[in-house]
Amino acid sequence: MSIEAKPAQASVNHAEKKLAAIFGERMVTATAIREQHGHGESWHPHAMPDAVFYAETEEEVCRALSICSETCTPVVAFGAGTSVEGQVQAVHGGLSIDLSRMNRILAVRPEDMDCTVEAGVTRPQLNDHIRDTGLFFPVDPAAEATLGGMAATRASGTNAVRYGTMKDMVLSLRVVLSDGRVVKTGQRARKSAAGYDLTRLFIGSEGTLGIITTLNLKLAGRPERMSAAVCSFSSLRPAVESVVEILQAGVVLSRIELADAVQMRAINLYSKTDFREEPTLFFEFSGNEASVTHDIEVVRSLVGSHGGTEFRCAHGDEERQKLWQARAMAVYASKLLRPGAKGLSTDVCVPISNLTTCIDETEEDVKQSGMIAPLIGHVGDGNFHLYILFDPNEVEEVKRVEWINARLAARAIALEGTCTGEHGVGLGKRKFLEAEHGADTLSLMRAIKMAIDPLNIMNPGKMLP
Amino acid sequence: MSIEAKPAQASVNHAEKKLAAIFGERMVTATAIREQHGHGESWHPHAMPDAVFYAETEEEVCRALSICSETCTPVVAFGAGTSVEGQVQAVHGGLSIDLSRMNRILAVRPEDMDCTVEAGVTRPQLNDHIRDTGLFFPVDPAAEATLGGMAATRASGTNAVRYGTMKDMVLSLRVVLSDGRVVKTGQRARKSAAGYDLTRLFIGSEGTLGIITTLNLKLAGRPERMSAAVCSFSSLRPAVESVVEILQAGVVLSRIELADAVQMRAINLYSKTDFREEPTLFFEFSGNEASVTHDIEVVRSLVGSHGGTEFRCAHGDEERQKLWQARAMAVYASKLLRPGAKGLSTDVCVPISNLTTCIDETEEDVKQSGMIAPLIGHVGDGNFHLYILFDPNEVEEVKRVEWINARLAARAIALEGTCTGEHGVGLGKRKFLEAEHGADTLSLMRAIKMAIDPLNIMNPGKMLP
Repeated sequence: MSIEAKPAQASVNHAEKKLAAIFGERMVTATAIREQHGHGESWHPHAMPDAVFYAETEEEVCRALSICSETCTPVVAFGAGTSVEGQVQAVHGGLSIDLSRMNRILAVRPEDMDCTVEAGVTRPQLNDHIRDTGLFFPVDPAAEATLGGMAATRASGTNAVRYGTMKDMVLSLRVVLSDGRVVKTGQRARKSAAGYDLTRLFIGSEGTLGIITTLNLKLAGRPERMSAAVCSFSSLRPAVESVVEILQAGVVLSRIELADAVQMRAINLYSKTDFREEPTLFFEFSGNEASVTHDIEVVRSLVGSHGGTEFRCAHGDEERQKLWQARAMAVYASKLLRPGAKGLSTDVCVPISNLTTCIDETEEDVKQSGMIAPLIGHVGDGNFHLYILFDPNEVEEVKRVEWINARLAARAIALEGTCTGEHGVGLGKRKFLEAEHGADTLSLMRAIKMAIDPLNIMNPGKMLP
Repeated sequence: MSIEAKPAQASVNHAEKKLAAIFGERMVTATAIREQHGHGESWHPHAMPDAVFYAETEEEVCRALSICSETCTPVVAFGAGTSVEGQVQAVHGGLSIDLSRMNRILAVRPEDMDCTVEAGVTRPQLNDHIRDTGLFFPVDPAAEATLGGMAATRASGTNAVRYGTMKDMVLSLRVVLSDGRVVKTGQRARKSAAGYDLTRLFIGSEGTLGIITTLNLKLAGRPERMSAAVCSFSSLRPAVESVVEILQAGVVLSRIELADAVQMRAINLYSKTDFREEPTLFFEFSGNEASVTHDIEVVRSLVGSHGGTEFRCAHGDEERQKLWQARAMAVYASKLLRPGAKGLSTDVCVPISNLTTCIDETEEDVKQSGMIAPLIGHVGDGNFHLYILFDPNEVEEVKRVEWINARLAARAIALEGTCTGEHGVGLGKRKFLEAEHGADTLSLMRAIKMAIDPLNIMNPGKMLP
């Protein structure tokens, strides 16, 4: 079966009947439920599955996949529906397996600084649960995503500069393959050299190789002390240059975020704050009392030498959280700049020495297009987003958005970066993969896909162009 | 072709002739050279290749692999020959491709804190080269290994507790596949969500999927201040318990090593030191002045509360390096305990809460066996090594060594750990993989191997049982 073929509707109906006979009410074909499972949080056109199955155990996922395999029925895994590149759209119909009821926290082991959770556990749920242990799970994509979904899309977010991405925080997984077999990708050891790294192979595979059911996750110790700061700049370039120097000086920041003037205007509008509406860096420091005090002084001095002004520290928990809350709401804030518009979020990531070039040229494109597109980013990783506001019914606007988006992806790739730092490929980035990886690398990815999912029933039509 | 089949000798000869016609003197069949390429630094029986090819460019590796592919000739990649599980043994003959002449440092980018090197560059060579940049490459397996070899075996070492393993420090790779095609596994961005993580798939694949020719590596900033300390304990248990508490307290150590009394005796013998011959922890602190001072006091207090005695700090560079040099020489020191004997190094890694159980039961086995087997380990990761000294000609001794080794692997697996934390599978750990991963996971690894190397010419007979 080619990786683009669509299964016959008859076999899908056959699978549905079999599944309904076993799982009764948890097999749902009501339009409202199917519609809800036909999209994430992005601008991509919705695509409903033929049915939704609410799985409650791994064993049920196995049975469902066995039946889908027998009947060549496409399968899409669904967590919280927060993905932003169309990963959950059932573009070939079939079955959406909703994992949100598999939300048990199976073990928390403070002495090992790890835990075991089912795929449907959300990040806030886990952090609430372990609040009293002195530990937390640091990967924070600013959405109430499930941990299974975060692993499947290789999510990261503001903390990645310090703690890495899902690739770094997952110890091992349990995964159901297309034929219903279960594999575990490793044990709980902190490191292993025992064979191929299947853990990392499934992380970021977006449901195209199997369905993650259980995760062993590392946890991080809550720092003794945390502080935050903001600083304004007259333009983006000196802001980025400051960050390069701060990283080279070995200052350990848990977050470094950059927002442009348009984004700061949106944040002020939404959060009723009074930040200067200029390019701004947000910092979060963490460590022990002595090291945080030291790091703040190093940063204050370095940003000062690059013309940074209004360096303001937020020492108390409340003040610090208020500052970061304003940052976390940036996407929602951006919507206020053009009420009713859709937003397309770009996601390039480049080596940091190329970041100013990438941003400068991009801002030039945005200006030329006339679109409103606030910029915010995880500047410590070289990753930034434009949130381009547009009316999908205006053909001319859509063209301009696509123009910005395609030029930005090509620019990032030419600057030795990637078209997607953390959102994944889904539907939106497929067209850029060949430029980024080359035909031979894509052909290798396809060979792996065909070896693991020979019938191409796992999230078909996604990721691989 | 099954993954165990041996190629016909005729086709190997045919490949050799073709390669010799192209590469002349760099195709070598002299016995001394073949013998040198038939083993690493382990006790495993040697196995010579039929010929050795000294490659100088990636393009040459492509040509060599194309010819090997046409003729079904097995290919083993060879770096510095420091692997310890028989990874370079040419158990099915064929061609050893020596990459040590591909030792160019192609780029160092202090502003991006990364570099690009050919696979034959060694770790000390890279660190010498970048000495003046304020950066260093932190993965340190205590051998003059090549960086390509370190990636291929997913190496780590004493610094892993702080900086991670090769999996964490490699940004992306260029790899030649069995049919001579070149793939690049990613760009230079610090993170990416653009498709399957081929970088991690090749890291730790031990030459069974392709030959790594070029690496983009992260570099770390040299800390402002480093200090070291040692501390003795009356038994292993309180030493390990101290480490658990230190990690939970969020103290950032760059190294935490544990040695047992026998290992300390060997170190004193070799390095003319006067350490107490008791279970000992070695610490390395790094950070800024204030944080190091703070961390030392936290550690001093925690080890004291577990009965640690003789807490000694080495503040100066020279004193610190002397202390770590004594640790680095541990394997060579161990050989002094039984001159002329061979050593088998075990390599289990378990969740740290299971480490005392694992060590206690293992020491009991060692005692029962009557063998000399000093213990040293990267205790912060839950990874430790026994270096079991034995005479390979004494059948009874070999049995006892195998008994200790097999029981230890089984114990680590039962304790949710791995049979190999950092040495890799090679020949020595193949028999433990099914117990660790299960049959379905191994079958998935085999499917990936067959998809990428359908003729099974890449390091056949290794890793997969």
